[in-house]
Amino acid sequence: MSKASTKPPSGMRDFLPADVARRTHVIEVVRRIYGRYGFAPLETPTIENLSTLLGKYGDEGDQLLYRILHRRDALARALEKGAEVKELDLADQGLRYDLTVPLARVVAGYDLPRFFKRYQIQPVWRADRPGRGRFREFYQCDVDITGTTSLAAEAEVCAAVAEVLQALGFDDFVIKVNHRELLRAMIRAAGVDEKLEGSALVAIDKLDKIGQDGVRAELAERGITAESANTLLELVLIGERDGGVTNLAGEPMAAAPRAGLVDLQTRLQADERGAAALGAVDQLLTLCAHTPAAKHLRFAPDLARGLSYYTGAIFEIAVADLPSSLGGGGRYDGLVGMFGKKEIPAVGFSLGLERILVVMEERGMFPSDLGVGPELLLCWLDVDLADVLAVAARLRAQGLRVEVYPEAAKLGRQLGYGDSPGVKAPVAGILGKDELRHGMITLKHLQSGAQVRLRTEEAAAQIAEWRGDGEDPESAD
Amino acid sequence: MSKASTKPPSGMRDFLPADVARRTHVIEVVRRIYGRYGFAPLETPTIENLSTLLGKYGDEGDQLLYRILHRRDALARALEKGAEVKELDLADQGLRYDLTVPLARVVAGYDLPRFFKRYQIQPVWRADRPGRGRFREFYQCDVDITGTTSLAAEAEVCAAVAEVLQALGFDDFVIKVNHRELLRAMIRAAGVDEKLEGSALVAIDKLDKIGQDGVRAELAERGITAESANTLLELVLIGERDGGVTNLAGEPMAAAPRAGLVDLQTRLQADERGAAALGAVDQLLTLCAHTPAAKHLRFAPDLARGLSYYTGAIFEIAVADLPSSLGGGGRYDGLVGMFGKKEIPAVGFSLGLERILVVMEERGMFPSDLGVGPELLLCWLDVDLADVLAVAARLRAQGLRVEVYPEAAKLGRQLGYGDSPGVKAPVAGILGKDELRHGMITLKHLQSGAQVRLRTEEAAAQIAEWRGDGEDPESAD
Repeated sequence: MSKASTKPPSGMRDFLPADVARRTHVIEVVRRIYGRYGFAPLETPTIENLSTLLGKYGDEGDQLLYRILHRRDALARALEKGAEVKELDLADQGLRYDLTVPLARVVAGYDLPRFFKRYQIQPVWRADRPGRGRFREFYQCDVDITGTTSLAAEAEVCAAVAEVLQALGFDDFVIKVNHRELLRAMIRAAGVDEKLEGSALVAIDKLDKIGQDGVRAELAERGITAESANTLLELVLIGERDGGVTNLAGEPMAAAPRAGLVDLQTRLQADERGAAALGAVDQLLTLCAHTPAAKHLRFAPDLARGLSYYTGAIFEIAVADLPSSLGGGGRYDGLVGMFGKKEIPAVGFSLGLERILVVMEERGMFPSDLGVGPELLLCWLDVDLADVLAVAARLRAQGLRVEVYPEAAKLGRQLGYGDSPGVKAPVAGILGKDELRHGMITLKHLQSGAQVRLRTEEAAAQIAEWRGDGEDPESAD
Repeated sequence: MSKASTKPPSGMRDFLPADVARRTHVIEVVRRIYGRYGFAPLETPTIENLSTLLGKYGDEGDQLLYRILHRRDALARALEKGAEVKELDLADQGLRYDLTVPLARVVAGYDLPRFFKRYQIQPVWRADRPGRGRFREFYQCDVDITGTTSLAAEAEVCAAVAEVLQALGFDDFVIKVNHRELLRAMIRAAGVDEKLEGSALVAIDKLDKIGQDGVRAELAERGITAESANTLLELVLIGERDGGVTNLAGEPMAAAPRAGLVDLQTRLQADERGAAALGAVDQLLTLCAHTPAAKHLRFAPDLARGLSYYTGAIFEIAVADLPSSLGGGGRYDGLVGMFGKKEIPAVGFSLGLERILVVMEERGMFPSDLGVGPELLLCWLDVDLADVLAVAARLRAQGLRVEVYPEAAKLGRQLGYGDSPGVKAPVAGILGKDELRHGMITLKHLQSGAQVRLRTEEAAAQIAEWRGDGEDPESAD
């Protein structure tokens, strides 16, 4: 038999201990802050029925679903169709594509509190073309509130994600806010046929990527006149005149949060739904005035968001050094009703774990000690291994992370291992006959070479002193 | 369009907040204790190449793999075969079946420390028949040490899982220990043909489920003589005479840890490999004498374990009130070599999260407060919602988990929501015009009805007092 490959499939990644430590650091901050906003955790299965997933994300989304091949009898029955067999005959289950559709299914299916505030931090899978920073398995960190149309819900999810980013050390992010009803009003005001509304939204969504000329070309291609295209672009970019709403080019981002809002109010005053949407955006900015989201929110009339299920406010988080967003969200009042008897309004925000990690990595935002790997490598010479393991148990009872060198070897070899890449134990503990006889251990600080012999019970205190911390790192919240 | 079902697929589960809280509690204990033994976290992708997975778990395992249906061109090419199309034409990727094979792939593929000590806590998928306590998606909590044949590695993984279970509140579990080479020696001693060794192992593995007569029947069916079957059963049950090695019937489990060991040494002294295996078991028990595993280890010559990749010591954890095991493991010195140029020895132990949860649930072993859900529901009357959100921000800055009632409503309705199932906030905070004017809040303890008006800054201290805790629960390790 030939050797199997040691690589994971394309677009999939292994996370070695240092990677997991950074991921866990971020996830723990997210959980703590989401919890503080009264959100409670939900988890849903990796595998969903295709009937749950299909028709929620648009055609492109459906194409990107991972599907589970039927087994045994079901597969045999499907293959009996011979040349007639279709993709849908071969699979009726697939992998979770996002965390919002599973939430909608859960909200429709269980007897939950009237306002269900849940967070969910789990991977999702999309069979997209892999590329730099684009993976086929990635984590989303979602918060959602179901059961209310109050803008308090929008304000709470915005404040929660803003506080998460602040707790991680971000201060320069912008939460762009727009409203689907406002986009529709602008499309109407530009004289675009109602049937082409969806096409116009898709084109505007690409403004960041393909620029104004690209959007003009795409609108023309979809049968929208040049005049309408110009008007539409003028409307969605109306805030730019006030200093730029978004700024991904690295320029200062201190634009007025409401830039363009008054101008649009003037332009759309005859459009009742458009005016109401503008009012909602304005009110949301007011509601957040004394929350962690306050100095980050910006009205962004050119924000469209790709997913088709949004019905109200929409959000997206931008930082200067990342071309894509750190997260996004919005209100989707129709999705739960696709599963249940009742329409249940909902709004949510999703942070992309991998994108946060990329920026934190580039900016060096991780704490130096993430609490992974041994604090002490226990080395031993001319003593019984059973006695070594007994000392290890006593050291661990002090809360220390202890690795035992597992084989008899020269001390130099053992110390060399402790200092090797991937281990990097800060301290070695050395046990010989003499130490064991007196209940002592010799501790050696591997970087400085400092060495001290002390009672086993004193090891944790000595290591804490070398690490230079007196207080509990948890308490510095 | 008809409504989509609100159910997850068969064998898959949704975890509501109370479920996630219990799961997280266990996972955090596992992570903390595994970390203390010097293990560092690894994560591998959900989707693996089928070439990685196939041929590692035996035929039954291969059958239970979830396979990912090819997409687009690859699917079209496969379907061109028409009636000739086979399962393997339709998929070349599948879902992770355990955490051991991905570890072996990683160890063969990366430049890792000579002794790689990793833990991994992730779900695995098996398309097994769902049943009570049997799911198709479930979590494993693995610890493994690669790179050494030293029994110190066996001792460390046994001590680590024992300490995890103790930290969770278990004290009555038994870690059964056996050795694949000893099983082979017993099979030889019973006069079973070498070619039938695998069949004999599979039959013995079922002893717990089908009893002695069942095993006899199965051995006969596989072509093993009644005389050999009797000898083999006598050998694997040799310890029973000393008071029973395992005891799933609820009887006392205080059998001698080495019951049967001396008898087997006498019976197998002519078999060099068998005697060496017995010596290894004996030494392992000695090595663990002063570790948390000490009072839990029992030699169990009838333990066989199903997976085919084990080569040395094997383990399984039994508790009286669970017919299946809480976890298992063993040494597998050949698996890494199936991926890489080098043979790298390895040993590991896997805890089953769901089985631990089932027993903890039945025994009521969870702490009463798992830190999920709001500690305070913020209610408000005749004030601006923006001011309410500002107070919420100040309360959250004190570390409190705060939910804001999102809509204007009568106070009774708001308080009723706070006390409703699934919310159960212990305390309501009430904000009216008067409170806001003076920077105060009225706190109401929902169970006792106690009510107090105080400065917003004093809320966290009052709630802690009501909860009856002075100290930090984290510090009580």
